[in-house]
Amino acid sequence: MLRFDLLSTSTTTRARRGRLTLSHGTVETPVFMPVGTAASVKSLDSRDLEGLGAEIILGNTYHLMLRPGDDLVARRGGLHRFMDWSRCILTDSGGFQVFSLSTLRRLTDAGVTFRSHVDGSLFELTPERAVAIQENLGSDIAMQLDECPPALAPKADVAAAVRRSTAWARRCLEAKKRGDQALFGIVQGALFEDLRAEHAATLVSMGFAGYAIGGVSVGESPEDIDRIVRLTAPQLPADKPRYLMGVGTPSDLVRGVAAGVDMFDCVMPTRNARNGMLFTSQGRLVIKNAEHRESDLPLDAGCGCYTCRHYSRAYLRHLYVAKEITYYRLATLHNLSFYLELMRSIRAELERDAFDPAVWLRRLGGAGEGAG
Amino acid sequence: MLRFDLLSTSTTTRARRGRLTLSHGTVETPVFMPVGTAASVKSLDSRDLEGLGAEIILGNTYHLMLRPGDDLVARRGGLHRFMDWSRCILTDSGGFQVFSLSTLRRLTDAGVTFRSHVDGSLFELTPERAVAIQENLGSDIAMQLDECPPALAPKADVAAAVRRSTAWARRCLEAKKRGDQALFGIVQGALFEDLRAEHAATLVSMGFAGYAIGGVSVGESPEDIDRIVRLTAPQLPADKPRYLMGVGTPSDLVRGVAAGVDMFDCVMPTRNARNGMLFTSQGRLVIKNAEHRESDLPLDAGCGCYTCRHYSRAYLRHLYVAKEITYYRLATLHNLSFYLELMRSIRAELERDAFDPAVWLRRLGGAGEGAG
Repeated sequence: MLRFDLLSTSTTTRARRGRLTLSHGTVETPVFMPVGTAASVKSLDSRDLEGLGAEIILGNTYHLMLRPGDDLVARRGGLHRFMDWSRCILTDSGGFQVFSLSTLRRLTDAGVTFRSHVDGSLFELTPERAVAIQENLGSDIAMQLDECPPALAPKADVAAAVRRSTAWARRCLEAKKRGDQALFGIVQGALFEDLRAEHAATLVSMGFAGYAIGGVSVGESPEDIDRIVRLTAPQLPADKPRYLMGVGTPSDLVRGVAAGVDMFDCVMPTRNARNGMLFTSQGRLVIKNAEHRESDLPLDAGCGCYTCRHYSRAYLRHLYVAKEITYYRLATLHNLSFYLELMRSIRAELERDAFDPAVWLRRLGGAGEGAG
Repeated sequence: MLRFDLLSTSTTTRARRGRLTLSHGTVETPVFMPVGTAASVKSLDSRDLEGLGAEIILGNTYHLMLRPGDDLVARRGGLHRFMDWSRCILTDSGGFQVFSLSTLRRLTDAGVTFRSHVDGSLFELTPERAVAIQENLGSDIAMQLDECPPALAPKADVAAAVRRSTAWARRCLEAKKRGDQALFGIVQGALFEDLRAEHAATLVSMGFAGYAIGGVSVGESPEDIDRIVRLTAPQLPADKPRYLMGVGTPSDLVRGVAAGVDMFDCVMPTRNARNGMLFTSQGRLVIKNAEHRESDLPLDAGCGCYTCRHYSRAYLRHLYVAKEITYYRLATLHNLSFYLELMRSIRAELERDAFDPAVWLRRLGGAGEGAG
């Protein structure tokens, strides 16, 4: 099931304050979804995620189908039960990772054959199989299988990928069996505005429960992402949730919200935490830098996360330098808290129609941009 | 400060139920101390340790003097504040690791010069320096510097090491300044009963706050450990705490308690957890084994730890195989819970004079012994 209530709309931007009701609970939007690739948000457990106030997390179909396998997860009662997470889950279709992580063997209209990056074994992913796998996983929101061409592919190749993705979208809708799972379509078209517009119109005519903007997360500039999102979002139905896949920096999120996007996911807060880059209200902090060696300050004096309430930069730097496992969890807790608090603040501003993206972008400054 | 109250004594064994009062609180004995080598019990944070009911943890002077450095820790307000741990801490002297981890440069009566295993830089450790470092760290219990000869050294070498350790013990007592830190002597002598007896008598005459049995943790058989502990423990004052260093398996703990030991530490529960070996009331469990692939059972149906209350063997096996960071914490929580619950049960039995080591050794069976 999926119900989307539009609670309020910004009068100065296209931003929306909404509420998603899914099989496993409600999700206040705009929302950031922490990425739990292989049935775990790396270094955290379910209690940590609940403590952070996460209402929905993402699972990667590609990783889960390879290991431990969607059949095994289904026999365990589904992904929620397997990983002891009682709130909502969105799964992607696996398409993006097949095109970026695996060794591609064959791509036809039928689907794609690839070798697992884990053990080299051969797998096939078709639209029907992508739906069946996600139904095995039992996520609240499933994504259609789409073809993800390289970021800088020529227009003819992108157009062909859009046509194939459209055909796959239709087959996904037809293959869908579970009533408790919502299926989203994905608008492709790279940086070509006419292809984006055309694809959006086609998918909307099919009547998905929600719509994603795909193919803008890797290798695009913030300006290109913003241009495509601002073009595409208004072409999607106002009464359906809009999801910008794999994006992005805090500033990307602010611009996405301003353009009318409701849902986001990105590995940036979790991956950057593990690599020693921490988001703060004063900008980005590189924990290994010598300036933190003797600092008794928390990462961010304005942050109320567990890490900032209990540990100094000096201690976290020590753990990072000594490669202590505990570092990864404390850093991940902080960065996810930064992202989730950002969205919480934005939602509060939207409720009183006080959301101003320019103020946010100024305030975020260096912390907001770049690849980290 | 250190106060040791003997609450009761077993009528059938030499076991004692006691209570240590230290600068940062009380410790119910017999006690197992989780090892927090480099200012963190690997993969856990302070809240986790409190949740497990740990009352005292161990820090390694060798690791901390090299990184982040005891001066830095002192400037941060000491180890308790640095790692946000408000309960008790025992630090070792660094001697054991100098002899086992570093490249030894020179060993004289004055002390030992060695190269750091971290960056190859040259360090010196003397009895006075070992005390000063531990006073910088601010632990509740500090250990004397001792010489740790190889496990199978000839008797003449062991006797020489005992003589040197005795001289160092005296210098540690003389160097001691802080009144809020208790200093323990360490009985050496390898497997030579006469050397052990002689060394115990000499150290006891010096009047330490507590006494450790050292040099039995590495490479000794359970029988040899038991023989030496049963010989040495009764030669230590009844009204002072006795600490068996670096030992051991659950069965070693049971035998140690029966011989009159009050304190234990060992990396086994934490290290084995990370390597996939988990302690259960039904024996040892190797989580990667295929039999757990589809198991919805908890690690141990009788265990009340966070991991067992929330996660199945199938999920933990998946995390382990996929090398997910979350595995390390969940496994460590379980193994430490097993050790701490074992000691809690033993203490409860001692309170009603119902402690029977034979019953425990039978019950522990395969889980209790061996190097894992």
